[in-house]
This record gives sequence, C-alpha cells and structure tokens, in this order.
Amino acid sequence: MNDSPLDLEARAHSEHAQELRLWLRLLTCSQLIEKRVRAGLREQFDTTLPRFDLMAQLERHPEGLKMKDLSHRLMVTGGNVTGITDQLVNEGLVERLDVDGDRRAFRVALTDLGRTTFAEMARQHEAWIVDAFEGLSPRDLDSLHKLLGKVKAHQLDINQRIEE
Amino acid sequence: MNDSPLDLEARAHSEHAQELRLWLRLLTCSQLIEKRVRAGLREQFDTTLPRFDLMAQLERHPEGLKMKDLSHRLMVTGGNVTGITDQLVNEGLVERLDVDGDRRAFRVALTDLGRTTFAEMARQHEAWIVDAFEGLSPRDLDSLHKLLGKVKAHQLDINQRIEE
Repeated sequence: MNDSPLDLEARAHSEHAQELRLWLRLLTCSQLIEKRVRAGLREQFDTTLPRFDLMAQLERHPEGLKMKDLSHRLMVTGGNVTGITDQLVNEGLVERLDVDGDRRAFRVALTDLGRTTFAEMARQHEAWIVDAFEGLSPRDLDSLHKLLGKVKAHQLDINQRIEE
Repeated sequence: MNDSPLDLEARAHSEHAQELRLWLRLLTCSQLIEKRVRAGLREQFDTTLPRFDLMAQLERHPEGLKMKDLSHRLMVTGGNVTGITDQLVNEGLVERLDVDGDRRAFRVALTDLGRTTFAEMARQHEAWIVDAFEGLSPRDLDSLHKLLGKVKAHQLDINQRIEE
C-alpha cells in the first residue's frame, strides 16, 4: 500500500513537523473511509455519495427544501444539485411541491418510496462507519472524539478570523 | 456556525451511533483544514490545491515523472493533470524533458524557479498545518496520531478485503 495514492502519509519526509504527518494521516483516514462508503453505495444501491447526501438533507426536512437551501446545504459534497434532483424525481424518490404564496418557486421533498429507500441506505451507511472504527475501544472512541473536538474548535476560530 | 454546510456534525441525530458522530467530526476537521489551505494558497500564492499537489509530487521526484505516473499519484486530488501541467510549463515552473530510449514519451520536472517557488509554498503550508493543531499538547498530538493510526490500519484492511 506504500505506493498507493491513497496513503498520503508516504509523502511526509522525516524532517517534516509532526503536525504535517498527523494531517496526512487524518486526510488518509477520511479518504479511505469515504472510498469504502462510495464503493458500498455503488455496489449495494447503485447510487453515488452526492445522491445519498442530497437524500439525507431531504430526510432531515420532511416539509421539503427550496432549491437554493438545498444547494447551500450541499456545498461541501458539490455535484450538480439540479441534475441530481431531476434524476431522483424521474426515479420516483423525490417530488416537487408548490411553495405557498410563491407561484414560481417549489420545494423538493422525499416521496414515500424515497423515504424507505433512504432509510435502508442510511442503515447500511451507519454500519460501514461503525466498521471503520471497530478497531477502537470505547475509551479510544471517546478520546478520539475529544481530541478532534479540540482540532475542530481551533480550526473554526482560525477560519473565522481569516474570513473577517 | 451551526447552520454552516461545513459543520457536518449538525447532521447527526442523537440516536445515531457514536461512530457516526465521530466520522462527521473527522470529516469536518479535514474539510475545515483543507478550506484554510485552499484560501491561503489562493490569497498568498494565487494558486490552487491541485497545482500545489502536482508540484509536491515533482519535488519528490527531481528526475521527473512520466505523465501516467504523475496522474496515478494525483488520483486523490483529481484535477486535470494535463491542463495543470501545461499551465505550469507556461509559467516556467515546470519543464518537459525527453525520456531516454522512448522518443514519443517525456518526463515533467520542476524548473529551478519551480523548486524555489514550491519551497516557499511548502514552508507556508506547513505553518498552516502546525497552526491547525496548535490547540493540542505534545501528548495530545501523540495520542491523536496513534488513534488515527489504528483507524487507518483497520480501514486499509477493510478496503483490501472489499477489493478482492
């Protein structure tokens, strides 16, 4: 695996700061787990991560979301929100609903079929993620959660300062 | 920041497995740090992460790389390798060199200008990464490195089993 583009740690020289090796390890972990999730979604559900993420957002908003709110919430995973929505509508997983008081706007929401389909994908997704961390004891899980909490809080501060 | 698409943890319901919350926290950390790196590369060097990654690969291979080896090594960050290489050649940061015994192939390598430019970017990149983890004590850094090492080894095993 040393030569794999997915093992980014191989890129760190020994003279590099410990933090750099830690960063490459963190990035490697997130890319390895994401790779497993993408493969599972493709093989078991013939779907993609952007489609899964879009349905996950709609599952959190049973009343539906306007397209611009949906796009905003999917900024990270990207993908063509309009194109994916069209696909999901064609497959009967998502429907377009009117917006009260705005005849030109519409909301999108999961259909009943979309809800049951997503529930099955989410159950499997959770199992993949549980697998990813099964090498850790309950105490390890807790430590990792706290340590990453410190990193997250600090980086949120930094990013906020930069944006000001 | 609760409503930000970058704080993925907000997506986890309380009934979800601890592992799922941990995964969203890990993903949030890596995306926040990557966002800071992208912003810094853009503002201080007018460049992008795929360009930086391509130059980082060439810095590790002073003898140059054939295009297919370069593409293989950049699979993760993606980007249009040929297009980026052309840009960097035009800017005098990268050059094309002949391959002995194969008149149709060529290698690409950093020029002297490319090497000094990359050294400055890499120094700054390392400083951003050191900043990202400055909320952690030396002991925390070590714990996080070990815990992520367990996650990485386990996920490499899983991915290998899946690919077989």
